[in-house]
Formats: sequence, C-alpha cells, structure tokens
Amino acid sequence: MVARPEGSVELLLQLTKADMAGVDRFITARMESSAPTIPALADHLISAGGKRLRPLIAIAAARMCGGTGDACLKLATAVEFIHTATLLHDDVVDGSKLRRGKVAAHLIWGGATSVLVGDFLFARAFELMVETGSLRVLDILSKASSVIAEGEVLQLTRAHDLNLDQETYLEIIGAKTAELFAAAAEAGAVSAGEPHERAAALRDYGLNLGLAFQLTDDVLDYGGAAETLGKNAGDDFREGKATLPLLIAIARSGPRETAFWERSVGRMEQTEADFRRARELVVGTGALDAALDCATGYAEAAKAALAPFAKDAWREALESLADFAVSRPA
Amino acid sequence: MVARPEGSVELLLQLTKADMAGVDRFITARMESSAPTIPALADHLISAGGKRLRPLIAIAAARMCGGTGDACLKLATAVEFIHTATLLHDDVVDGSKLRRGKVAAHLIWGGATSVLVGDFLFARAFELMVETGSLRVLDILSKASSVIAEGEVLQLTRAHDLNLDQETYLEIIGAKTAELFAAAAEAGAVSAGEPHERAAALRDYGLNLGLAFQLTDDVLDYGGAAETLGKNAGDDFREGKATLPLLIAIARSGPRETAFWERSVGRMEQTEADFRRARELVVGTGALDAALDCATGYAEAAKAALAPFAKDAWREALESLADFAVSRPA
Repeated sequence: MVARPEGSVELLLQLTKADMAGVDRFITARMESSAPTIPALADHLISAGGKRLRPLIAIAAARMCGGTGDACLKLATAVEFIHTATLLHDDVVDGSKLRRGKVAAHLIWGGATSVLVGDFLFARAFELMVETGSLRVLDILSKASSVIAEGEVLQLTRAHDLNLDQETYLEIIGAKTAELFAAAAEAGAVSAGEPHERAAALRDYGLNLGLAFQLTDDVLDYGGAAETLGKNAGDDFREGKATLPLLIAIARSGPRETAFWERSVGRMEQTEADFRRARELVVGTGALDAALDCATGYAEAAKAALAPFAKDAWREALESLADFAVSRPA
Repeated sequence: MVARPEGSVELLLQLTKADMAGVDRFITARMESSAPTIPALADHLISAGGKRLRPLIAIAAARMCGGTGDACLKLATAVEFIHTATLLHDDVVDGSKLRRGKVAAHLIWGGATSVLVGDFLFARAFELMVETGSLRVLDILSKASSVIAEGEVLQLTRAHDLNLDQETYLEIIGAKTAELFAAAAEAGAVSAGEPHERAAALRDYGLNLGLAFQLTDDVLDYGGAAETLGKNAGDDFREGKATLPLLIAIARSGPRETAFWERSVGRMEQTEADFRRARELVVGTGALDAALDCATGYAEAAKAALAPFAKDAWREALESLADFAVSRPA
C-alpha cells in the first residue's frame, strides 16, 4: 500500500472564511421563492452542512488566479445549487433514506416536490451564472451538467453488473462526481479572467481530486482500511453497487467466491451475514488497498496539476485538500 | 359567450418550414449521448410530435425582428428541450400514463431514468443557448425555468384545494405554462438583436397566448363547449385538479353542489358517474363559457400585443395562432 500523507480542509477553510460567509448569504437569498415549500426543502438539505467542497474549490481557484469582486461567490453558489439539485434527484432515483445524517427530503415532502425543487435550484444556478457575465463560465457548467446526467444514467443502466470493467467504472465516477469538481475549479479560474493554460491546470486538479474523493468514499463504504467498521458502511454493497473495491475483488476471486458475488450482488439475494463476508473478501484479496492506492494516485495527480502555480498559501491549501481526500476517517 | 374567430397554425408552419426542418436536425443531433438510453427515451417523446408551438414562436419572433442565421434555430431547440424536460418530470410527478398518445416514458424506462434524462435535456438546452452567444437569451430562459418550477410546486401544494382563488390559479398557469411561451417569444426577438420595446411586446404576446392555450385545455377537459365529450375528457376532474372551469362552477354552486365538490374533488372520493355530474354543473352554471371567454380575452390581448409590428405575413400568422388557441377542437 502506498504511504499517504495526512491532509486537511482547515487551511482552505481559513483562507476562504469571508468568501464562504458571502456564499452562505447568496445561498439563503437565492433559494427564496414565492412557493414557500422551495426554501423549506432546500434548506433542510443545505443547512445539514456537508463540506461545501465544490464552492470552496471554485473560490480558491478564482482567488489564486487573482480574481477580485463577487463573481466567484455567485459562481460558487451556482455550483453548490447544481450539486444540491443532483443530490435531491439522486435520492429520489435511488430511494435513499438518509442524506447528511438527516431524513432524505423526498421522504418528508415527497418525490414529486424533491424533483421540482431540484429543477428550481438548477435554474437558479444558471441565473447566478448569467450574473457573472461570463459565457465561458456558462459553457463550462452547462457542459458539466449534461456530463453529470449522462454519468448518472450510465451508472443506473450498469447497476448490479459484475462484468463492468474498471475503466468504465472510472468513466462513470469521472462523469457523475469528478466532473463538477473539475468544472468548479476551471470556472473559478475563468471567472478571474484566467487564460486557457492555468484554467486547464485547475480543471485537471479538480478532476483528479474528485476521483480521489469518490474512490475513497467507495473504500470507506467497506469500512475503510481500519479494522473497525464505519457506522454507515455497507450501503453500496446492500444496494448492489459495483464500485471499484468490489470490481477488483471479483476480478481476483476464485469460482466459489464468484458464485457468492453473483448471488449477493448480481441477483441481489442477500442475507444479514453477507456484508461481513463481502468485506472479508474485499480486504482479503487486497482489493481495498488496491482501490485506496488508486485513489492516492489521483490525489498525487491533483497535486501535480498545480505545478504552474506559485507555492503560496492557496496552493498549499489545495495540496492539503488533495491529501485530505484520501486520508479522511470513515 | 364571446364570438371566437377561427384560427390556424398552418400559416406559421408554412413560413417556418425550412427553419423547423433545421430545428428537427438540431434536436436529433443534440439528444445524442454516450449513454444510449438518453436518445432512446428522449426520442420516444419528441418523435411523438406535439405541435412544437414553443420553437415555432421563438423562430417567428426572431424572423419578424429581422434575425438571420441559425442562432434562433439553436434557441428554438433549447426551448423544445426545456419543454420536453418539464414534460418528463411532470409525468413522473403526476404518475401520468399517457403522453401525446403514447405510453409515458417513465412507464417504459422507469421514473429514475425519466428524471435523469430530463436533467440531461435541461443541461443541453443551456449548452445550446451558450452557442447563441447571448447572455440576455440565457438570462430570459434561466429565469423562465425557475418560474416554471415554482409554478409546478405551487400547483402541487394547492391540488384538491377548493378554496383556491381564481387569481392564484391564473398565477400558477402563468408560471407553469405561459412563462415558457413568453420567454420563447422574447428570447427569439433578443436573438435577432431586437432592443427592449419590441422584445417586450413579443413577451406580452407569448404570455397571453400561453394563458389562452392553457385555459382552452382546461375547458376541453370538460368536453369543450360541444355537446359530445372529447375522448380524453375528464382527466383533470379525476385527478382532482382545481382548474378555472371547476373553480368558477364551485363559486356559483349552492350548498348541495358544494357538498358534491367537497366529496369528489376535495376528498377525492369519486364514483364513475361523478364526471358526468361535474360536467353538468360546469356547463349548467355557465362556468365553461366563462372560462372560454376568459381564454378568448387572453387571445385578443395576445393579438393586441403585436401592434408595434408591421402587418406582414408573420404578424398575420401569429394572430391566426392566437385565434387557433381558443378555437381548436377537443
């Protein structure tokens, strides 16, 4: 297993404290509506927190490229709205019960309202981007939005597919997760008037960071590398999601284990004891370490992408975030 | 009852024949995706036809304002994609079984895929608008999109509400239906470089036209003014939708009829015979004629909004469309 440096989101939070307070104000102001259900539902999810990584990245990218003014705050709010819209739709699509430790919105307000509030936030995101005055920002985020939807559809059509190859899996998470990190970073740079090259470097950073985060999430869902299982571990397995740890374990399995995977994931016939067995196989075959090494590789690639930038506090904060992506607890 | 001149969409179809062929090509090209489910599902709905009124209006507005080139074709395609996305989400939200005479997409591909393909088309719409190069076009359509979602949420929260006042009902259909007609017309003008005044006149035309269309739809759902019932009449009543004919009939009802409405719509306890009784009341109280008069008033307002334009074939075609809105058969 590759050695992994500890990282933290703290440096970035300190540097963006005033900006993120501004983003919070925009979030509150722009979820307002003549239909009171909309801010109620949106606030249920948004006030539950989450790390707000995507707006953090958009702001960091803009500020390290010398952006002044509040264009990047509007962009960051737009990015968070797009993310929130996809979470609302995902939870309806997956029938998820929990989100950020709270009851999922569709279980309180109904799936119909969740779909429509997602649509509203998506539209509001584009209104905010229009206010940045940058067609390039709109271009980046509209393309990202269709790529995200494509990734979600691909994942839906390949669920429970034990023959999914690892390359296709990485394409799917690249689209459904990493693309928004990439777009946030690139659009942040563009909002600061940054020409092509450094904006492309930040896009590269965001894409690799997003992959590192998603793969680490996938690993944590099997209890992480630690011996003790995380509280919410096992969700992916119970939903039959073919994530990288599972795909690697299957590729390394003998005929007897293959029969286990075909029953428990392929046909979704699971017993209570199956997750423990799945975790034993994922750990025992070295699949968990391999997936974490893969994540660490992407975190390293994210840091390397920052080479065109001066070694200042912003770069240090983004590097630390990349390390954090693969070193966070379950 | 106000006299209503016959109208037709034919004049407009003739004038836009080449442009609409171009729109069809853009629709086909831009629903393509690496996820084959997306064009399959989108094509199921789009190839079923429909009158393509919104793209027709966008193109007419652009051409009558002297617009050349294909910016308005991209805009018209974007408008049709937004409309298609809202239909896909609406059908999931309402659990509708039929759309344009075909089985609703969510019953074939599932609600999850319908939601995600709607998201994809919405994102593609914004990609197309970015290509028009006009921030004002993006501003108009992003605002319209959030207004539409608000209207849908308001309608959802006020379903089965017998105390809905007529003004609020008109606000709801103004948002969920007429706003996209208004935005299509205004953005068409803007895409042709039209300054504020004539673009505002076209917006006014679209808004009133949209209200006339929706109110006529509401009337047709009670079998129209004709004695024979249309084939699909009764859907709104059976879903307990408080539309204008119903709201007027309730306002004109005595205590005995009020009890009928409270049971059949308020509590949704319906028998087979109830729709015939509802129709008798809606016709007998003059509510159907009153709603149709209201629709006709909006059609007249739409025509009046065209006053700043020369009396050419385009204006004649748009006037005929307004008459068509309130004179079409069930």
